[in-house]
Amino acid sequence: MATIKDVAERAGITVTTVSRVLNNRGYISDKTRKKVYQAMKELDYRPNAIARALAQNQTNSIGIIVPSLLHPFFAVSINYFELYAAQHGFKIMICNSQRNIEKEMEYFDMLRSNKVAGIILCTRSGEVEKYLGYSFPVVTFERSISNQIPAVLCDNYLGGVLATKHLLESGCTHPAMLNGSLHVRLPADDRAKAFIDICNAANVHPLIFTTNEEQFDNRRYRPEIDTLIEENPEIDGIFASSDVIAAQAIQACYKKGIRIPEDVKLVGFDDIEIATLTTPTLTTIRQPIELMCKYAIEIILQKMKGEVVPIRTVLPVTLVRRESSETTP
Amino acid sequence: MATIKDVAERAGITVTTVSRVLNNRGYISDKTRKKVYQAMKELDYRPNAIARALAQNQTNSIGIIVPSLLHPFFAVSINYFELYAAQHGFKIMICNSQRNIEKEMEYFDMLRSNKVAGIILCTRSGEVEKYLGYSFPVVTFERSISNQIPAVLCDNYLGGVLATKHLLESGCTHPAMLNGSLHVRLPADDRAKAFIDICNAANVHPLIFTTNEEQFDNRRYRPEIDTLIEENPEIDGIFASSDVIAAQAIQACYKKGIRIPEDVKLVGFDDIEIATLTTPTLTTIRQPIELMCKYAIEIILQKMKGEVVPIRTVLPVTLVRRESSETTP
Repeated sequence: MATIKDVAERAGITVTTVSRVLNNRGYISDKTRKKVYQAMKELDYRPNAIARALAQNQTNSIGIIVPSLLHPFFAVSINYFELYAAQHGFKIMICNSQRNIEKEMEYFDMLRSNKVAGIILCTRSGEVEKYLGYSFPVVTFERSISNQIPAVLCDNYLGGVLATKHLLESGCTHPAMLNGSLHVRLPADDRAKAFIDICNAANVHPLIFTTNEEQFDNRRYRPEIDTLIEENPEIDGIFASSDVIAAQAIQACYKKGIRIPEDVKLVGFDDIEIATLTTPTLTTIRQPIELMCKYAIEIILQKMKGEVVPIRTVLPVTLVRRESSETTP
Repeated sequence: MATIKDVAERAGITVTTVSRVLNNRGYISDKTRKKVYQAMKELDYRPNAIARALAQNQTNSIGIIVPSLLHPFFAVSINYFELYAAQHGFKIMICNSQRNIEKEMEYFDMLRSNKVAGIILCTRSGEVEKYLGYSFPVVTFERSISNQIPAVLCDNYLGGVLATKHLLESGCTHPAMLNGSLHVRLPADDRAKAFIDICNAANVHPLIFTTNEEQFDNRRYRPEIDTLIEENPEIDGIFASSDVIAAQAIQACYKKGIRIPEDVKLVGFDDIEIATLTTPTLTTIRQPIELMCKYAIEIILQKMKGEVVPIRTVLPVTLVRRESSETTP
């Protein structure tokens, strides 16, 4: 395989100059740059990214730690992390902690050893102090674990407001919420807070059912939803805190002969692909996942340059109206 | 940050011995090994993975090139690639070619520059010769691009047989197939071949509708399915070549007042999560995605050791019966 010395010889210039072209350092004339690229092409020379990483004590990789890749929200996020990282010449390295805090810390150390340029944390670990004081950039995504670590999240409270108001304005007088676990503190908890606030303001009883952590892993919510519907036949509106939960609410209603949207109106959360694949399709709160990913990557890059970055970047959500809440969508 | 020299001093041994412990080379007594680990712990020493990669001219990363991460089949695959790579101490690096052959080749070169231990190709590129003659391991996944590159895939033909036989045995006399594009040659084409063979053997006309490449990207099949149902009211069974297409077939039938499974029986392909989230739930052909990912990772590791590996690893599929084909599942 060709070396940098071969390239220099072929181009008739010094190794130092070739190195400056490769690393984009100092002034280089267009003519010289062209000569270097021509020689590289002729010799099929590829710079050794690892050698460069050692010299710079940093790779052009961004580490991403997720709690699960089977959950569609994170799968879609990975897609956009890759897209925006690639636009800036960065690769992404994926670590799946499977919600295991020890595994998460192991991955964190591993990514440090591998000299990643930064880390995006999508996990819910509370071991904040471990992440502090590191010189390299860390961003949390749809998680807020410390006032000292920048977080990118959607406006969960607004999402809860939009969903609940939509149900009430559609004529629901007995709305219920199917919520994620409340045992771990998450920004998503604000969805339930908003549901309670809006119901209270409208003098409507806020009926809330919470799921547990295990269900986040296996995404099986049917038994609880079946019970909820069985025991509360007055329910005429459901706000599900994810589209996956909402899809299962459709199944539960269908089994009981309850028509959506005629008998029960339903609103999900996320607007991932499943929202367009259910029958009926889901009215839902759209998280701007692509934009959230773009901001997370940009904050990593800004921190790398030593720039001051916002400690919280909260992006707006919108209500997407589909068949599950409206007879003529 | 502590260096290897600090560790050697603290442990009271030479740098060479510490290095041998870290790289697991040569005979080291348990006592010495313990001393090194103790010193590493006390000093919070972390080996520089990049320096080691340079010395070994290889990182412990496996590169994965996918055509899309928004397609749930690939999102699920990434989950299991990560799982099995991690079990062997390897990280994964994800590249999304977005079905662009140039981008794919760029990523291939980039992964080479970054000294990955191997590459798993999930893309459909036909530029075979570019991949040949490289010293490092390449495996294709649900793609077969050359007789010289090991491929891991499911038994697509068997899947088509099981799906079609199930429709015929359930009483369908006018089955139709909604197939992926036939313009690119893929192992999945065997699903349609099997559909035709089984229909012919049963003296039933094999009605096949194909979708196009663009639809693979945006996953919107409704207009074609609506037309198919409109123009062929005799259809009483549908074999969809993916669960995403099958979910949209449910929507199309629902709109026309066609009941599933009473009027039309429906079988999907993949058995990704969406198959359990539709109403009714989907009877489908289960690809053993986890097992396929396990084999792909193992073949990379075997090729790294210079072992001879199977050129084709074909894993069996199974029929999973759910509500879309049976009134009492």
